[in-house]
Amino acid sequence: MRATQLYAPTLRETPAEAEVISHQLMLRAGMIRKAAGGVYSYLPLAWRVLRKIEDIVREEMDAKGGQELLMPIIQPAELWQETGRWDVYGDEMFRLQDRHNRNFCLGPTHEEMITALVRFDVRSYRQLPLMLYQIQNKYRDEIRPRFGLMRGREFIMKDLYSFDRDEQGLDVSYRKMYDAYTNVFSRCGLTFRAVEADSGAIGGSGSHEFMVIAESGEAAIAYCSVCDYAANVEKAELKPIQQMHETQMSLIEKETPGTKTIEEVSAFLGITADKTIKTIAYQTEKGLVLALVRGDHAVNEIKLQNKLGCLQLELASEDAINTALDCVPGYIGPVGASNVTVVADETVMLMSNAVCGANSRGKHYLHVNPGRDFKPAIITDIRLIQENDPCPHCGQAVKTARGIEAGQVFKLFTKYSKALQATYLDENGKEKPLVMGCYGIGVSRTMAAAIEQNNDEHGIIWPAAIAPYHAVVVPINVKDNVQLELSEAVYSRLQSAGIESVLDDRNERPGVKFKDADLIGYPLKITVGPKTINEQLLEVKVRKTGETTFLSLADDYITAIKNMLAAL
Amino acid sequence: MRATQLYAPTLRETPAEAEVISHQLMLRAGMIRKAAGGVYSYLPLAWRVLRKIEDIVREEMDAKGGQELLMPIIQPAELWQETGRWDVYGDEMFRLQDRHNRNFCLGPTHEEMITALVRFDVRSYRQLPLMLYQIQNKYRDEIRPRFGLMRGREFIMKDLYSFDRDEQGLDVSYRKMYDAYTNVFSRCGLTFRAVEADSGAIGGSGSHEFMVIAESGEAAIAYCSVCDYAANVEKAELKPIQQMHETQMSLIEKETPGTKTIEEVSAFLGITADKTIKTIAYQTEKGLVLALVRGDHAVNEIKLQNKLGCLQLELASEDAINTALDCVPGYIGPVGASNVTVVADETVMLMSNAVCGANSRGKHYLHVNPGRDFKPAIITDIRLIQENDPCPHCGQAVKTARGIEAGQVFKLFTKYSKALQATYLDENGKEKPLVMGCYGIGVSRTMAAAIEQNNDEHGIIWPAAIAPYHAVVVPINVKDNVQLELSEAVYSRLQSAGIESVLDDRNERPGVKFKDADLIGYPLKITVGPKTINEQLLEVKVRKTGETTFLSLADDYITAIKNMLAAL
Repeated sequence: MRATQLYAPTLRETPAEAEVISHQLMLRAGMIRKAAGGVYSYLPLAWRVLRKIEDIVREEMDAKGGQELLMPIIQPAELWQETGRWDVYGDEMFRLQDRHNRNFCLGPTHEEMITALVRFDVRSYRQLPLMLYQIQNKYRDEIRPRFGLMRGREFIMKDLYSFDRDEQGLDVSYRKMYDAYTNVFSRCGLTFRAVEADSGAIGGSGSHEFMVIAESGEAAIAYCSVCDYAANVEKAELKPIQQMHETQMSLIEKETPGTKTIEEVSAFLGITADKTIKTIAYQTEKGLVLALVRGDHAVNEIKLQNKLGCLQLELASEDAINTALDCVPGYIGPVGASNVTVVADETVMLMSNAVCGANSRGKHYLHVNPGRDFKPAIITDIRLIQENDPCPHCGQAVKTARGIEAGQVFKLFTKYSKALQATYLDENGKEKPLVMGCYGIGVSRTMAAAIEQNNDEHGIIWPAAIAPYHAVVVPINVKDNVQLELSEAVYSRLQSAGIESVLDDRNERPGVKFKDADLIGYPLKITVGPKTINEQLLEVKVRKTGETTFLSLADDYITAIKNMLAAL
Repeated sequence: MRATQLYAPTLRETPAEAEVISHQLMLRAGMIRKAAGGVYSYLPLAWRVLRKIEDIVREEMDAKGGQELLMPIIQPAELWQETGRWDVYGDEMFRLQDRHNRNFCLGPTHEEMITALVRFDVRSYRQLPLMLYQIQNKYRDEIRPRFGLMRGREFIMKDLYSFDRDEQGLDVSYRKMYDAYTNVFSRCGLTFRAVEADSGAIGGSGSHEFMVIAESGEAAIAYCSVCDYAANVEKAELKPIQQMHETQMSLIEKETPGTKTIEEVSAFLGITADKTIKTIAYQTEKGLVLALVRGDHAVNEIKLQNKLGCLQLELASEDAINTALDCVPGYIGPVGASNVTVVADETVMLMSNAVCGANSRGKHYLHVNPGRDFKPAIITDIRLIQENDPCPHCGQAVKTARGIEAGQVFKLFTKYSKALQATYLDENGKEKPLVMGCYGIGVSRTMAAAIEQNNDEHGIIWPAAIAPYHAVVVPINVKDNVQLELSEAVYSRLQSAGIESVLDDRNERPGVKFKDADLIGYPLKITVGPKTINEQLLEVKVRKTGETTFLSLADDYITAIKNMLAAL
């Protein structure tokens, strides 16, 4: 492709609307344009990247026995009413009526549609297992679409659905998809982690999220560098931490003026934070809740909310605390707090002679012994995993990172097959519900995530496997015929060798072309200039490392370039 | 692919809902399933065909300099309001609101969107010409979706838009696309005609439709087998037919009882139909119109309506004819018809001493001489082209056929660029509107059209280039290990050679497998049975011709099979 013909209108300025780096760089590199909030056109460079990601996805799905099909985007309401999700989905679902006033939605997902399809045609266990997938636009009417392609209202997804006879079959399909996803993100050249995403038992395998590691990621994850444990910190289950055994001493109320934080009270008393109990008051629709964790720990509000089974959970106001406990925040605690629900983290229950607020301004209790001095209504794991916490699997110190959820695998079991009566006959002629799984990859989000992970101040740094082109050939001066002809020759040889290239034949200053090359992020930049003519040397610069290599035109430079790409 | 794993649920019965053969066969072959009226899921076999058509389209678009992108399906109303089409489109446009009550539509086409995209980024003549295209779902809320994929509400289109500096540039782009479309349909293995679709001057090139020839086609076309003329009969322009010169005789009114049709009056008078004038009365919002054509010709109501510039045109009722002409149908004519609009075909004006109704029951005039005996308000071409009419280009006899419109190329000129203010600066810094063309291919409709053109009583007969698979290998008896192993070996060699194959490893009777093979329409059926074991012969049957060839396992049968495919 010649740059004079390529439709990649780069921008010098960063558009003000773009909050995250992938959004900024895709706008600047002429890859996307906004059509409406959360709705974008993908210009040719972006479309090439998307097609490469799609092809990798396709190959890996097919390799596991997946079969591609294409279901409608507009879906009749009746199907969603059968599962009850028509009402549940709320404003996030785009809805419309046809000219006969029949209700439709724009598919946010396709569980209903695929289950209805399969219930019509699958009769027998002999047709199982079955894995069907598609790659297409999905729709979600986000309240506040933002971050460019990271949270759009129209976005490209691959969704695969597995159908098995039983849970053993589902385990096999799930594992296949887990492996396929690992291959997909590896082949895309991304650093990622598959994290446990369900809130079930430790080691539960009901759902995994595939997180592309990036500082800008919305999700925090914890992972072990020794074993393969990794989890969304929101979901990470933790075992209680055993404490040193101590003889219980008598409860003492002590004046601790001006010590409203754990740090302050620890310093005042000359103890470490892990000797204190942190008490946080939450307002829920079920009333005020006191959540207790060890002083050096944090409350995982997602876990807390799940375990309380409440719909609302927010920090209690000072007024609410005053009303319930007759105390100001900073000095509250579980001892004697009879008219609120106390939820204690399991680790708290293993503490001895601890410090906690005394529900009286400027006072704390010393020698608090949980179980003896207060009895929580609920004792469970409500702790947020932290860097260096023991790995729930192997006990080694975990690390934390931020990630972008680019894929998720999920066991549905019989949720949809029962609702939609999708059954099969087993070997004994007995009717059974299909056992399902669903597996999604955000294709357009993966492109954005790749940029979030791979960029610098000059622009995008594409992994070679998903780069729109592998190389750009830049003649320093297109008005110099010798340079231009040489560039054409190099470009032509690259193309023939299957190295996808752009020839930057624009009559622009070299600086402009180099800036665009770095912005667009071609893995290799091949410069043809005076040095090429005088010394027969091509300058090849690797975008990722910044390394420059000179290749002799007399040598087999094509093979050398291929090897450089293969090493990226 | 193994048939035991392939998701192609064939049906024995033809579903009652399916009116046309492509719809019936795609349902029966397990290629599509209905989700709602005019909305379908494409199952794996159909999806493979669609992908092959898409790939051919893509290659041909790219070869002409087209660049692929992807625009949104949901489009903001504001864009359509700028061109005024938000109101014009009516009920055919699917409309919806987002959660903030902003109006959107589901794109029925993308002129507005692409023009808005380009106006943002194209500034200079140096960025032109530009050809951008996409392949995606389009939406049209048809009153009565029918004929399966032939007239759906959600369907797959390729739409390319060209942007040029001037009309000369547009001519070049238009010609490129015309050629590309010719290549696409040729490569798909279809018999087709590019027909003139505009109602402008003869030879006008403002629009062509690409018609896939099929008896079931909705459109009638006329084409010349000598020159390259072809046109939609609705649009075909005709030159007047010169008549033999005769001396004009005096007008005579004659009793012609019981002769209400051209056939009856010709027989009664012992003349040929081309000596009579056919008079048809139409009701329009502008009043009653008498349309005159030669007795052996037919009125082209589309042309008539266009030339009258009326919105309504329907056959006049007997009452209306009585009121206006004081006569019953069958005896009406232009002579003395003063209070109606008379429109005469040009050929009528060249007739001498003709016969026409006398506006009196049971009577006709003889020796009618147009111009002398009546003066039409409008004289123009309103004739419907017929088989054996002289070709408007070369004069040879034309043929007629029925076709399915699978593609259209169209010059838009500056309609959208002016409405949306999409301009560029020319060499002199002068601002000018972009000159546009648009070019569509119905991808899903092409698949259906291919079936309409290529089928028999047993099922589909795929052209090899777009067949879901090239060959099916059918072991007669999968319980016979020798047969099964031999089939596996053949299948494996076919796959390695790039011949996309299905191994029908199902434990079914051979008749069932053969029926499915014919229904699905694999170009080649390779049978492995006793003859293969005993005589080392593979039976290869060509779906299209029914020919059976025996290939020796000892020979290079793979090359032979490749050659058979190449010949299809």
